[in-house]
Amino acid sequence: MKLNYAERMDKIKASEIRELLKLTQRPEVISFAGGLPAPELFPVEKIKEVSKEVLEEAGTKALQYGPTEGYEPLREKIAQRMKKFGVDATKENILITGGSQQGLDFTGKIFLNKGDVVLCESPSYLGALSAFKSYQPVFKEVPTDDDGMVMEELEDILKNTENVKVIYVIPDFQNPSGRTWTVERRKKLLELASKYNLPIVEDNPYGELRFEGKMPPSVKSFDTEGRVIFLGSFSKTLCPGLRLGWTCADEKVLNKYILVKQGSDLQASTISQMQLSKFLEKYDLDEHIEKIKAVYSKRRDLMLKTMKDEFPEGIKYTKPEGGLFTWAILPEHINARKLAEKAIEKNVAFVPGGSFFPNGGNENTMRINYSNMDEEKIVIGIKKLAECIKEMM
Amino acid sequence: MKLNYAERMDKIKASEIRELLKLTQRPEVISFAGGLPAPELFPVEKIKEVSKEVLEEAGTKALQYGPTEGYEPLREKIAQRMKKFGVDATKENILITGGSQQGLDFTGKIFLNKGDVVLCESPSYLGALSAFKSYQPVFKEVPTDDDGMVMEELEDILKNTENVKVIYVIPDFQNPSGRTWTVERRKKLLELASKYNLPIVEDNPYGELRFEGKMPPSVKSFDTEGRVIFLGSFSKTLCPGLRLGWTCADEKVLNKYILVKQGSDLQASTISQMQLSKFLEKYDLDEHIEKIKAVYSKRRDLMLKTMKDEFPEGIKYTKPEGGLFTWAILPEHINARKLAEKAIEKNVAFVPGGSFFPNGGNENTMRINYSNMDEEKIVIGIKKLAECIKEMM
Repeated sequence: MKLNYAERMDKIKASEIRELLKLTQRPEVISFAGGLPAPELFPVEKIKEVSKEVLEEAGTKALQYGPTEGYEPLREKIAQRMKKFGVDATKENILITGGSQQGLDFTGKIFLNKGDVVLCESPSYLGALSAFKSYQPVFKEVPTDDDGMVMEELEDILKNTENVKVIYVIPDFQNPSGRTWTVERRKKLLELASKYNLPIVEDNPYGELRFEGKMPPSVKSFDTEGRVIFLGSFSKTLCPGLRLGWTCADEKVLNKYILVKQGSDLQASTISQMQLSKFLEKYDLDEHIEKIKAVYSKRRDLMLKTMKDEFPEGIKYTKPEGGLFTWAILPEHINARKLAEKAIEKNVAFVPGGSFFPNGGNENTMRINYSNMDEEKIVIGIKKLAECIKEMM
Repeated sequence: MKLNYAERMDKIKASEIRELLKLTQRPEVISFAGGLPAPELFPVEKIKEVSKEVLEEAGTKALQYGPTEGYEPLREKIAQRMKKFGVDATKENILITGGSQQGLDFTGKIFLNKGDVVLCESPSYLGALSAFKSYQPVFKEVPTDDDGMVMEELEDILKNTENVKVIYVIPDFQNPSGRTWTVERRKKLLELASKYNLPIVEDNPYGELRFEGKMPPSVKSFDTEGRVIFLGSFSKTLCPGLRLGWTCADEKVLNKYILVKQGSDLQASTISQMQLSKFLEKYDLDEHIEKIKAVYSKRRDLMLKTMKDEFPEGIKYTKPEGGLFTWAILPEHINARKLAEKAIEKNVAFVPGGSFFPNGGNENTMRINYSNMDEEKIVIGIKKLAECIKEMM
């Protein structure tokens, strides 16, 4: 028996990465593959404390249906936190979502007809590409350099492309490249989006994890017209297991997201939202973020140093000022998927970079995560990876 | 500034019901409108207990990312519980979703191209219609009677309709009608679906809340080909605030749901899944369901008795053997939306039935919930409602 699926399902396939990530669950594997935060930093005792208090104080309310928009006190606190990103917001601008991933799916649903064009950074976040694929768009990759998306290239593409519907960007410690956009490019992006009347989706799960320098204002902070949709997440600053993120947008635009949330799953978990809200009330999340940054920046330093010492010449990699990833470019003749196969035999994993290019190519690239492994494993893993690379040089 | 949305958004509008439900949050309102379970039955202390234990035992694992399919021990327990529905399943047949609502959204994504036909009961669950609408189908309503969908009508429609892609049914204590299908019709449905090679989506959030008589086997229990997709939920048997439901399907079909889950929001909340799993391990959910049934059946009895005593002649209503709703048919000249406006002035709310017919009409119908109000309020509310009806007779 073969059921008759929708056309869009032809494009939705199990990614090789998913299979790779399954292998990384073996305890002997040193994994630089996932985008997992360091679990040893999760504030388990504090979450235990707020879980108890929420059920004591809110009782049955914590277990009942709640509004689609989200738990009001949590929306208020997130609106306040948007100041960190240079954005003045009220709770009316905030929808609570199932991680920021859900905001990506909703973006596709709200903006994309089949065949519409999504402009994204080249490379871009795989999970966003997967989410958008359900709505059958065409991806057009905009070239990037160390300062983010190249604006001349964007302008050129906008001039010559029909049916562009959304510009999707990750301006802070981009996934997969670890790069951060300059302020000038952020402003220019907005100017171009305005000229072509396009929405910008600004995905920002990593911006708060800045190890050095000053956090640049978000693209949304320059938005006077309500065309930027900002996606935030607690997965990297607190923990991913609660599955809570948010969409911050102009009220009129946010209303579309709320309508779509209603049909998709009614609302985020009432109890999880109350727990998070209580956590933010009782504890200082920014203080907690400082602890995360201290650990991650040491891991990044050690990883970059080991790469410098061990990697053969001719390999370039980014030096991110925050976030979770570095991005390496191998000599053109080295296929990173083959390298990954070789590495996994030595119990080391990373994600081949080719998957982050929606239109293919760039098979000599790799995304390397430094947040999830301890320092000893980072050194051993990078050394083994260097051996594998040398064998393929 | 006006952004350019996808075509599907033309159909996705705020429902009047949503506005109505907002009014019902005023404490003075006696609401028969929502489909809310009785919060006084939520096992708050037990959930508090399992929340603590999960964080003590699983620690950071409860706060980390987990597999898209769901937490394995929970999937195993749900597979076991499928026996209640007459279904032999293993964890490989179970995906954990954000309530069964998310399974409906995924169904649309997986099966529906624009213009495809969804066959549903007339009337049908509003939330399913909303979920499917995102994928721009055409709804064809199949007439129903007290025994469920009328099979001769279904056969006739199948013979004469092109592009049918999905048959969506709620065979147990249907929302909104409260009706339950006979076993014969369940078998016949499967026979017809097989003849036309169609998937059946069997939505079953209420089946376990049977006050009398024996639970009929689910449609899925007769499925030898893997064409029935069964959607289950803990929202009505435990609590909705955790937002946990499941999809049970043949492995090949379930794989499509897992792929779509991955792109939509990666996974359900790790910690909530562990809490639920621990609850099922430590406590007897079926024992808890007995308590719910005892309360709801008394409320149903009282509501039906009060309706019998107070409603003017010429009003028909269903006498459900379980679930949350009864369904009333007013004389044709009474518009239930107008009645609802009148009732809310007297602080009584219900949902006008017209919204449950995707192609309109039937404005003389009403859905009345009996699970959420205590007995005193049921009597007062129904009396007031009767007064409003009399004024319109």
